[in-house]
Amino acid sequence: MSDRSPDPPRLERWDRRMEAPLAVASVAYLAGYAVRILAHSHLSDGWLDVILVVTLTSWALFVVDYAVRLRLSGLGPLRFLRTHLLDTVVVILPLLRPVRMVSIYNQIQRRHDEPRLGLYARVMVYSGLTVALLGFAGALTVYHYEADAPGASILTFGDAVWWTCATLATVGYGDMVPVTPMGRVVAVGVMACGLALLGAVTGSFSSWLIQSFRREDEKDEGTRNGGRPPGNSPGAS
Amino acid sequence: MSDRSPDPPRLERWDRRMEAPLAVASVAYLAGYAVRILAHSHLSDGWLDVILVVTLTSWALFVVDYAVRLRLSGLGPLRFLRTHLLDTVVVILPLLRPVRMVSIYNQIQRRHDEPRLGLYARVMVYSGLTVALLGFAGALTVYHYEADAPGASILTFGDAVWWTCATLATVGYGDMVPVTPMGRVVAVGVMACGLALLGAVTGSFSSWLIQSFRREDEKDEGTRNGGRPPGNSPGAS
Amino acid sequence: MSDRSPDPPRLERWDRRMEAPLAVASVAYLAGYAVRILAHSHLSDGWLDVILVVTLTSWALFVVDYAVRLRLSGLGPLRFLRTHLLDTVVVILPLLRPVRMVSIYNQIQRRHDEPRLGLYARVMVYSGLTVALLGFAGALTVYHYEADAPGASILTFGDAVWWTCATLATVGYGDMVPVTPMGRVVAVGVMACGLALLGAVTGSFSSWLIQSFRREDEKDEGTRNGGRPPGNSPGAS
Amino acid sequence: MSDRSPDPPRLERWDRRMEAPLAVASVAYLAGYAVRILAHSHLSDGWLDVILVVTLTSWALFVVDYAVRLRLSGLGPLRFLRTHLLDTVVVILPLLRPVRMVSIYNQIQRRHDEPRLGLYARVMVYSGLTVALLGFAGALTVYHYEADAPGASILTFGDAVWWTCATLATVGYGDMVPVTPMGRVVAVGVMACGLALLGAVTGSFSSWLIQSFRREDEKDEGTRNGGRPPGNSPGAS
Repeated sequence: MSDRSPDPPRLERWDRRMEAPLAVASVAYLAGYAVRILAHSHLSDGWLDVILVVTLTSWALFVVDYAVRLRLSGLGPLRFLRTHLLDTVVVILPLLRPVRMVSIYNQIQRRHDEPRLGLYARVMVYSGLTVALLGFAGALTVYHYEADAPGASILTFGDAVWWTCATLATVGYGDMVPVTPMGRVVAVGVMACGLALLGAVTGSFSSWLIQSFRREDEKDEGTRNGGRPPGNSPGAS
Repeated sequence: MSDRSPDPPRLERWDRRMEAPLAVASVAYLAGYAVRILAHSHLSDGWLDVILVVTLTSWALFVVDYAVRLRLSGLGPLRFLRTHLLDTVVVILPLLRPVRMVSIYNQIQRRHDEPRLGLYARVMVYSGLTVALLGFAGALTVYHYEADAPGASILTFGDAVWWTCATLATVGYGDMVPVTPMGRVVAVGVMACGLALLGAVTGSFSSWLIQSFRREDEKDEGTRNGGRPPGNSPGAS
Repeated sequence: MSDRSPDPPRLERWDRRMEAPLAVASVAYLAGYAVRILAHSHLSDGWLDVILVVTLTSWALFVVDYAVRLRLSGLGPLRFLRTHLLDTVVVILPLLRPVRMVSIYNQIQRRHDEPRLGLYARVMVYSGLTVALLGFAGALTVYHYEADAPGASILTFGDAVWWTCATLATVGYGDMVPVTPMGRVVAVGVMACGLALLGAVTGSFSSWLIQSFRREDEKDEGTRNGGRPPGNSPGAS
Repeated sequence: MSDRSPDPPRLERWDRRMEAPLAVASVAYLAGYAVRILAHSHLSDGWLDVILVVTLTSWALFVVDYAVRLRLSGLGPLRFLRTHLLDTVVVILPLLRPVRMVSIYNQIQRRHDEPRLGLYARVMVYSGLTVALLGFAGALTVYHYEADAPGASILTFGDAVWWTCATLATVGYGDMVPVTPMGRVVAVGVMACGLALLGAVTGSFSSWLIQSFRREDEKDEGTRNGGRPPGNSPGAS
């Protein structure tokens, strides 16, 4: 019936033991990627090699973790892929690893029986964080391809961040545009993410706002009808 | 159960007594901010100092009001912050103070048992007013940073307002763009507000439109079925 | 209970008698407005005066119709304004008069007991038609203010239509932008309409699409369960 | 009651027999259209004629298939048009034929009683595929009209694809814009499709995301309440 059976105990133990190393690896990966692109000309070849090794080691750790979890889950590869979609995306795009932090924060709150974020707030935080990380990676990559291209208008990393913000918001001033084929391919990816994920953020925000106003109405009704707590009304979820 | 317990009576008395002074302070703050930026070169240093004092006094009043209400509410700072989110935002961004007017208008209507605005209409009015005020503040601030910058295209306050409208609507012609780092930071803020709040306005407008058409259908049904008033049908909220 | 009581019989008779004259007047108004702007330099002063008289007469007819209906309805002005919002808007912006055609088409279909358009389809048709008419009027007005302005990029009516489409879709290439203050004010109006009404169109289209897919599912279920007609299932509205 | 009665057996037989030829014809049509535009100057007149014949034969096959199905369905033309909207659109715009593949894939899955895509996933796949195909056709057509126009900025097919992506996402940088009347007419069509269909994609994505988060909540609840499978809860559809 349920598509996601509870994880077996050995898998749970593995997850808990790997939490800290994976968090470190994800920060190392992101930092390594950023430093290689931004400080390329200021670093000696030795340092660049060190950073490359750090980046690849972090990635390898994600791959190993994924393989072990696939093994321990007792599911087939395809079924595991479908039920652990976010984990699979993280292996291919390790830049998104920090998104899992929100899920870990949620688990900690739940263990302590503390209230978690509301549904819409969680969708906003996840989608917003994903957009921010993908936007950061997109700005880095576009800057990498455009900075030295002839006729380019995106010349500094600051320009790339400004361009990314204008693109994600679908404002698109056009004062800066990628001119290289690879820069444009990354730009289309940034647009697609912007449309889909920021659409989720704004949609959730609208729903949350309307829900807040509706609850306030119910509170007012409750106060008038003799203080019946609004939390029991069926509309409040 | 309810996250927002009814306010204690002393807090309510304080709120009622502060309504008028805070409304005056918010108008003074907004006017002071606008005059300092727009009429900067036409005013003597003495007048500029007077306006600065007015602006800071207004802000101080907001901070004092917030502190007293936190004290009287009997809640901890974090809990108060969570249940009085709009008030907290107003202390940090006093430009948003006039948004509270809508809430005060609502309270007055309720006291007289007059009908309030519908749910979607209220979301539209709140979000639209917030966007208008933030857009006005954004245009002022962008004008402040851009007007004298070398290579700038936003040269007059009219230009800044036109640029803000094109940005909020995510049209982004690109005939005018901020070129200074601070101008761009403010621009990103304007984009974020535009996306989130105008998304709420258009979403509420769509919902309201669909609701209106549905009600008309129900009225027609009611007329045919012997004049049963549509107000009793479960779909109409 | 009901906010819209059924119209009294005399009002209904008036409405039916005025249908044809008002339709003619609305076409005359729109044509007069367009001809005055587009063929300004090709017409003699005599013809321009004739067209102006036609335009003003049409408008006067709308005002008279509104006044008579307000009188016959037996409601106060404010209450009539609230329950006949579209009619009021038409008096101020007679360019929107053709939007009422959809409502007349609906009434004719209903009299003959023929199926009307679905809820989402009607929202799409109304909003889409309103956007098309407002966009047409916006293109005319922007062309009127921009065509002869120094430094303008909108030089022909074709340019104005192309600019309006790019603005309504919030694409905003920026190859053409209004440069006069009045042109920009109209542009902001076009943006606001585009955001609100096209948001309603696309929102209704999405809802309609999802509804269609859901109905197909229910039909498949019905076929399997022995041909139970899907029209009776509660989800289909 | 049901607007779509089950298709008669002869029609079903026809559909099954035509599946393969129509799939071949749709690929042939799309390839022929693309080759004629992209390789125009590299092909001899003989080859161009061959390709034209292939394209027209494919189209003829769609028209014949539509006519036969209209005949076999036993419905009037107008009623058939309303209940087979997608088929009708395909006859006019054969570029959309591949969209029907998704529907065929669904039918095969159903015959084997395998799980189909979820509701939102199907809306996303259909709308996304339609946008991709219409965008491809739009880029081809705009390239066809713009490439040789004086003062054009869209010079290569790569430029046309980049322009189409920026337009569909409503980013609209303005570094490339169509300048010919026909190019602009196609551009307005691309904008309209982009708004409507990508709106459906992002709307479905948001709904799917919120649904996923809600299900996770329910799973957690289920685990706590003694492992009740979440599939039975009423909210999960």
